[in-house]
Amino acid sequence: MKKGMIKLSAAYPKEEGSYFDIDYYCNTHTPMVVRLLGDFLKHSAVEKGLSAFERESESPFMAMGHLYFVSVDEMHKAFEPYLEEIMGDIQNYTNVQPYFQISEVMI
Amino acid sequence: MKKGMIKLSAAYPKEEGSYFDIDYYCNTHTPMVVRLLGDFLKHSAVEKGLSAFERESESPFMAMGHLYFVSVDEMHKAFEPYLEEIMGDIQNYTNVQPYFQISEVMI
Repeated sequence: MKKGMIKLSAAYPKEEGSYFDIDYYCNTHTPMVVRLLGDFLKHSAVEKGLSAFERESESPFMAMGHLYFVSVDEMHKAFEPYLEEIMGDIQNYTNVQPYFQISEVMI
Repeated sequence: MKKGMIKLSAAYPKEEGSYFDIDYYCNTHTPMVVRLLGDFLKHSAVEKGLSAFERESESPFMAMGHLYFVSVDEMHKAFEPYLEEIMGDIQNYTNVQPYFQISEVMI
């Protein structure tokens, strides 16, 4: 992504008894978010956790989702009308609370 | 990134008394890593944490770095000769231990 873009990441931590439905996340949740955020959204990405650095180790996060915007203002404008709908869908694919992080793309 | 690629992320958590030298990370550490990993490395990205979802909130991570490879095997092959050199440089830009996560690109 281009330097200066804004990236919203959701990182879903692996905890005891936690689950994450990656199929629902990729095939239902993310397409819904992409549709609702419309032209404000410049790019999206999803990753499934495999491990920590060492082979066979436990990955700290079950999955991560990333949404890219031109600015923090545009991000909030995009989410405002749909925040409840998007956040309300989280319970359909996981039982953990994600870390949300807004970052600025440096490289 | 293309579906199926392998992404190594380092997420540097914000903790009490923690610091992160984003200039060193962008201008010294990442270029060194890119040079050492050579052709195994397909793409790299760096982000600076701004906030959590809400404005003025604290971002869970001070920064994140991402390296993309074709496979987990190639990732380990790339790091093997330089692991000590790369990990040893962490103390030059932060006082926290990052979460390392290997992920598979889904979207």
